[in-house]
Amino acid sequence: MQSVIDFVLELDKLKTVTRKTKTLHSDRYENSAEHSWQIALLAWSLAPYAPAGTDIHQVIKLLLVHDIGEIDTGDTIVYANADWTALKAEELAAVQRIFGLLPASQAAELLALWQEFEAGQTEAARFANACDRAMPVLLNLANNGQSWRENGISYQRVISRIAEPIETGCPALWHYLQARLAAAEAAGWFGDKNTV
Amino acid sequence: MQSVIDFVLELDKLKTVTRKTKTLHSDRYENSAEHSWQIALLAWSLAPYAPAGTDIHQVIKLLLVHDIGEIDTGDTIVYANADWTALKAEELAAVQRIFGLLPASQAAELLALWQEFEAGQTEAARFANACDRAMPVLLNLANNGQSWRENGISYQRVISRIAEPIETGCPALWHYLQARLAAAEAAGWFGDKNTV
Repeated sequence: MQSVIDFVLELDKLKTVTRKTKTLHSDRYENSAEHSWQIALLAWSLAPYAPAGTDIHQVIKLLLVHDIGEIDTGDTIVYANADWTALKAEELAAVQRIFGLLPASQAAELLALWQEFEAGQTEAARFANACDRAMPVLLNLANNGQSWRENGISYQRVISRIAEPIETGCPALWHYLQARLAAAEAAGWFGDKNTV
Repeated sequence: MQSVIDFVLELDKLKTVTRKTKTLHSDRYENSAEHSWQIALLAWSLAPYAPAGTDIHQVIKLLLVHDIGEIDTGDTIVYANADWTALKAEELAAVQRIFGLLPASQAAELLALWQEFEAGQTEAARFANACDRAMPVLLNLANNGQSWRENGISYQRVISRIAEPIETGCPALWHYLQARLAAAEAAGWFGDKNTV
């Protein structure tokens, strides 16, 4: 029991990991804990648009755990020109440490979910990834392109980082976003940087 | 698709609903969105201690939606001497409005989950409720009784509001908490108010 409690209290740190996207109803950046809740609800609500056979319970679990490594590494905006291979190795070490607070069989279950999300080889992982990529886009579209403007990110850079994963994981969602993004470009909500 | 997006953006408001418990690693009160994420993980991690046959996927779903009505009503500390019947009626009206942003069949699914949690008649609902009651206790126990001290709440009041639901939903968790709460009382982490 104490190991479960230690794990859940360690998770409290995810509430202090800030992202580049602001919440819509207060002038602060969202954190990765509340983001994880919101994308679970996004995926669940989008279930009618998921490819046939997608296991939504699995998707929800993937999304609830996939950002936990950020407790040690922090969040990196998806448009960054980062060394993503090195970053993912750091995140793996982080989740091994954090999940390792739990009894071994539970740690193994969570690690397998984290790895499934990262590998993106299952329908559930691809759908989960599409939702994860789409959520900050939806917030930006509701907020005059806030994080794109603040970081000067170009329309082309956004498309290059999100089109393929969202179209692969949830084609209907990409169809919807394409039109919204084109309108956002016309409105001047992007910058000219191809990386940040 | 637009109705799903409208719903998920409406959910953003839960990030601005503050509770009486502080986060452990920054000096601010937690919000109901990040709390919803954390209790889903608490329940999931406590699955080995759930009564046999408890459907953990159902528990996770109950916990992810059960606070959404607070978007309209705000959070009320569980120790309050509130008119809980009236408050729950307000919350029901709130979730009917918010879930109603979704297509009818999805709205009905979420409403049924919200009602299952509130009714507390299923094993999943009782286990979920135990986790929901336990989480702020665990945070307080890790934080010198922060919300009990700030609101002057007595040990007896805490026990009267959490013992029965936690013991019913997850006996092993109550067994663990009982000893911790007794130690907290000995440490002087409670006040003398029987309500707030």
